[in-house]
Amino acid sequence: MSIDPRIQASFDRQSMMVTLGATLAETGNGTATISAPILPGSTQQQGFGHAGLTFSIGDSAAGYAALTLIPDHQEVVTAEIKINLIAPAKGDRLIARGRVIKPGRRLIVVTSDVYAESGGIERHIACLMGTMVPVDL
Amino acid sequence: MSIDPRIQASFDRQSMMVTLGATLAETGNGTATISAPILPGSTQQQGFGHAGLTFSIGDSAAGYAALTLIPDHQEVVTAEIKINLIAPAKGDRLIARGRVIKPGRRLIVVTSDVYAESGGIERHIACLMGTMVPVDL
Amino acid sequence: MSIDPRIQASFDRQSMMVTLGATLAETGNGTATISAPILPGSTQQQGFGHAGLTFSIGDSAAGYAALTLIPDHQEVVTAEIKINLIAPAKGDRLIARGRVIKPGRRLIVVTSDVYAESGGIERHIACLMGTMVPVDL
Amino acid sequence: MSIDPRIQASFDRQSMMVTLGATLAETGNGTATISAPILPGSTQQQGFGHAGLTFSIGDSAAGYAALTLIPDHQEVVTAEIKINLIAPAKGDRLIARGRVIKPGRRLIVVTSDVYAESGGIERHIACLMGTMVPVDL
Repeated sequence: MSIDPRIQASFDRQSMMVTLGATLAETGNGTATISAPILPGSTQQQGFGHAGLTFSIGDSAAGYAALTLIPDHQEVVTAEIKINLIAPAKGDRLIARGRVIKPGRRLIVVTSDVYAESGGIERHIACLMGTMVPVDL
Repeated sequence: MSIDPRIQASFDRQSMMVTLGATLAETGNGTATISAPILPGSTQQQGFGHAGLTFSIGDSAAGYAALTLIPDHQEVVTAEIKINLIAPAKGDRLIARGRVIKPGRRLIVVTSDVYAESGGIERHIACLMGTMVPVDL
Repeated sequence: MSIDPRIQASFDRQSMMVTLGATLAETGNGTATISAPILPGSTQQQGFGHAGLTFSIGDSAAGYAALTLIPDHQEVVTAEIKINLIAPAKGDRLIARGRVIKPGRRLIVVTSDVYAESGGIERHIACLMGTMVPVDL
Repeated sequence: MSIDPRIQASFDRQSMMVTLGATLAETGNGTATISAPILPGSTQQQGFGHAGLTFSIGDSAAGYAALTLIPDHQEVVTAEIKINLIAPAKGDRLIARGRVIKPGRRLIVVTSDVYAESGGIERHIACLMGTMVPVDL
């Protein structure tokens, strides 16, 4: 369990992650994990986590998974991403695990799975699949 | 320009919309518009609006567009939605316009376009296409 | 109603379009239209047009819409595309209308709508949204 | 390696699969595998397999993976599916492996990976993620 300082530095500049209470839990070689509580200010109309919360950490985990594989003079931006929401976001916290499916110089295909943890048990609540684009800093 | 009180009541229960500073601007027959500033707490690492902000208001606008067409004893939840991000989220505020493409008893196909407004000029920054599912309250 | 000879030449090299009986009906500035019958060899298990037929002409119409906007020394390939199927593909023929949402040097965001025509009446059966990538010939 | 006769019977009614030369290779508990050659009539303008071929077998494999999990009096139809094309479809044949991510009474979330095999080596060329809907026969 380690965190690439470059990814942490980028993460720390994402004020949205602070707003959502999210933390970077781990980065690997083409992987990144982000977790976040379901804050009182992050819910939808039924009191569950908003799709925007699940999306935000799922998208960022996928983006940072891509960032682990590209040169230091580049960043990544999300070109497109799709989310399938498969269960309500309820529990103690959400965990998003991003992973690169296919690296590339122009396009990086990524996926992310989001889980809701309750009492140590994880339930799969969403899956994302998308495209990240490397851009020069 | 009017707002359905039922949609407003549901919107007011979405604490995520409050966190993002979003407001419900209009609802119609199969349409809904949400706007939001780019708050200091809603940015990505380059200081632009986070994809999670654009997604959150785009998804909610699409969901509320669907809600305008279903019976009072039902809510909608997002089954899946895809976002293509076509320009950086920078400007005075973002505007998401949701619209029902195809109503249905089991599935409602929706779309949403998000614009960034600067000095009265709108730039198209994202488009979403997804599926809402009516669920009994 | 005109057809760009460059688009027609590329279309004629897509043997899949011949197999499906598809024809290029029109090209414009960032638009392209393809139509196809529902051949006996293009159905799914219930006898309606296969999702693969609807997808094939929808994807190609979107790709050719993009091709109308790029330099002659380039082609486009589909990076990703999503289809929402909203009604069964039944009728005399299918018509796919592709359109560029956002041109770009690296990525071109496209959309396509597919209709089923019966007795002169069109029914909307699918919508697609995706990303085309220009590549050098 | 076995094939559920019910899935085979449905597959045999999909004339599109015959047109593409596709065969059902295996079905399991929430899984299905389809393979297809790249026929002379299934190519795009550069001579590689058309995205419509890759999509057709990827979508059908995902749909049949879902069908293995639902009651005999029901069929499934694709509500929506997204494909990311990550490498050209070239090789001896394509293999699509579908899998259910999340079963459900109303919606079944599925995924599919498509590989191109050349000389016994498989290359990952596409991934799909979508939603199947059970419908009564």
